[in-house]
Amino acid sequence: MATTGRSDASERTVSMDEFDRYRAELNERLLGSNHLGIKRFFALDTQAYEDGALDRRTKELLGLVASTVLRCDDCITYHVKQCVGVGVTRPQFLDAFNVALVVGGSITIPHLRRAIDRLDQILDKQDLEAAAPPKHE
Amino acid sequence: MATTGRSDASERTVSMDEFDRYRAELNERLLGSNHLGIKRFFALDTQAYEDGALDRRTKELLGLVASTVLRCDDCITYHVKQCVGVGVTRPQFLDAFNVALVVGGSITIPHLRRAIDRLDQILDKQDLEAAAPPKHE
Amino acid sequence: MATTGRSDASERTVSMDEFDRYRAELNERLLGSNHLGIKRFFALDTQAYEDGALDRRTKELLGLVASTVLRCDDCITYHVKQCVGVGVTRPQFLDAFNVALVVGGSITIPHLRRAIDRLDQILDKQDLEAAAPPKHE
Amino acid sequence: MATTGRSDASERTVSMDEFDRYRAELNERLLGSNHLGIKRFFALDTQAYEDGALDRRTKELLGLVASTVLRCDDCITYHVKQCVGVGVTRPQFLDAFNVALVVGGSITIPHLRRAIDRLDQILDKQDLEAAAPPKHE
Amino acid sequence: MATTGRSDASERTVSMDEFDRYRAELNERLLGSNHLGIKRFFALDTQAYEDGALDRRTKELLGLVASTVLRCDDCITYHVKQCVGVGVTRPQFLDAFNVALVVGGSITIPHLRRAIDRLDQILDKQDLEAAAPPKHE
Amino acid sequence: MATTGRSDASERTVSMDEFDRYRAELNERLLGSNHLGIKRFFALDTQAYEDGALDRRTKELLGLVASTVLRCDDCITYHVKQCVGVGVTRPQFLDAFNVALVVGGSITIPHLRRAIDRLDQILDKQDLEAAAPPKHE
Repeated sequence: MATTGRSDASERTVSMDEFDRYRAELNERLLGSNHLGIKRFFALDTQAYEDGALDRRTKELLGLVASTVLRCDDCITYHVKQCVGVGVTRPQFLDAFNVALVVGGSITIPHLRRAIDRLDQILDKQDLEAAAPPKHE
Repeated sequence: MATTGRSDASERTVSMDEFDRYRAELNERLLGSNHLGIKRFFALDTQAYEDGALDRRTKELLGLVASTVLRCDDCITYHVKQCVGVGVTRPQFLDAFNVALVVGGSITIPHLRRAIDRLDQILDKQDLEAAAPPKHE
Repeated sequence: MATTGRSDASERTVSMDEFDRYRAELNERLLGSNHLGIKRFFALDTQAYEDGALDRRTKELLGLVASTVLRCDDCITYHVKQCVGVGVTRPQFLDAFNVALVVGGSITIPHLRRAIDRLDQILDKQDLEAAAPPKHE
Repeated sequence: MATTGRSDASERTVSMDEFDRYRAELNERLLGSNHLGIKRFFALDTQAYEDGALDRRTKELLGLVASTVLRCDDCITYHVKQCVGVGVTRPQFLDAFNVALVVGGSITIPHLRRAIDRLDQILDKQDLEAAAPPKHE
Repeated sequence: MATTGRSDASERTVSMDEFDRYRAELNERLLGSNHLGIKRFFALDTQAYEDGALDRRTKELLGLVASTVLRCDDCITYHVKQCVGVGVTRPQFLDAFNVALVVGGSITIPHLRRAIDRLDQILDKQDLEAAAPPKHE
Repeated sequence: MATTGRSDASERTVSMDEFDRYRAELNERLLGSNHLGIKRFFALDTQAYEDGALDRRTKELLGLVASTVLRCDDCITYHVKQCVGVGVTRPQFLDAFNVALVVGGSITIPHLRRAIDRLDQILDKQDLEAAAPPKHE
């Protein structure tokens, strides 16, 4: 599934690298302001997705669907990436997207378009890296 | 965990039986109107939670968290009941509520209060039924 | 279509008369506070549904669907009543509800249950009044 | 401003005492479940309204308007009570409601009706208590 | 009404052609994944706007206003285009925008800015095509 | 605090000047359409933030937090600028952001990232202008 060039046609997506860089830089700026409440909230946010009574994989899927019905593209992008990291497969993503679509309605569709675009960018990159010859030796 | 009398103090909850009856009666009225689009939507809604690439239990949890961040009490009640039916435990509910709380913020708290009230009503009833002596020989 | 007794089973609906009375009384209290901004907003709200480039009937339908996807029961009740007043038929209501359902998703279903309940209460009352023998000679 | 009997006409409000009791009981049930994330969130929620770079009064007003545009009746009731406690006057409430109304639109009106009803219940009670003869000597 | 150059100043709009291309390509990717639920939802979405008890023109206006109060730019763009296609006039659009503005509040204004920008782009293009000399002969 | 180059990394922000230009141009187009309801709404919107029972500074903060929990980037940008104009300090902004974060949840975080980016752009520009040598003499 070649995504080369697809991001050119994209309405408002930036590359995954740019997304990560902006997100990291501005999070640092928010946290660097040393507001205790904001810092503690960020800690709670991280902890909410750790293994507990529910495992991390289920929680990341919960975060993904919550972000989708609330229609926050950046949150969706973040959770798509996390879900790929804990082994969620493409058919499982589609099942989760379908729950979000039924609960949240057609208003979620533009977000699902960008979500599958992101998902395929991440999966493509993963495939490329897996296919790459070892870097030295 | 005795819930006797708790529903008296409730802000706007009705008994689970009344909830089920009103829900069934009005769904029937909506569907009985024979609007093809509405009937098909209801079918899609049912199918979205069936076993697939993700299992039904995960999907019911997705439905619960989506309903919580969108703050729909009746949807929460429905999914709490479904989740209990597929074996979600109280600590797992709390983990799911926590994800919803972090994603959706304090604005979800009144809904979480009613959600845990409902959950305990359903679990209490289950306990009562399990503890009941066999009805006849 | 007899609705007798149905409101007993209702989750949170009150009679149409009580709804109207509370609404009128509290609107008066809001407006009686003489806040110029609030008074002007209420005037704009009334004018928005008057005949213009679009006719009142279309605008009331727009108000109904907007209220449904934003999931405001009291706003839905109000616009259902207004729509009945300008001649929207039950099949047309179902078509409008279906648009709201598709756009807004299953999260709107509890509101659609209450909406059709309200609609039938209003239509039943209308039928009763039409069927009543003339009050005096 | 006599509110006697007004709550009878109310669509879905319960008395302020019942509200407080249910809220306290269910918060305790949520917190008594000992979910660390939920407990910490509640602590953050309390701290967010304490004096800081902005004073508590301004923060309670922020909480009130945020709750109004997000249309959460129980959150509005809570912040109305807190705002009265830190000296927000009725004309200031109306100014805050007006900002919420302009930002959030007519969809907030049913919530503003209930908000002013609550506000007047609380102010009436305060007046009654102030007017009461000293309880002993 | 010349729109030349205006899209340069635009906050986040892309050309209508790019919008259509991205939308078509990603819809195809979503549907090409062969998830039965998603495919059926897309079919329901299409059918919801076909002539029925309400005509297509009214339904497209309902879709437009629903999209505006839910603040989904891509959905607004889509329905603006559909509405132009079924003959909705500029003054009628303004009437529909006004209903959305009153119901949804000032928070919809940035979306209305982009909506009228899109609308004029589409109307300008239509005018240009109507004014163009026949391509051959 | 040098912001040079930061907008390159931005997900979707444009320069403050472009933002202002697009906003002014399209507002003019909306108002130039001479729809009385829309014109009156814009007037109400302006008046809602003027000194009254609450002062303008408090009202701008209310507008900022309302915009943040409703997650409208352009509204946030506008109110950040207004708040800076009436003397809100960076620590006060962080306190307001924290209230919005707690009420609205982690779903507001991407908007807070862009909000602090905008805030720092505006504060940097202010510092530059204050540090600039007098233009003549």
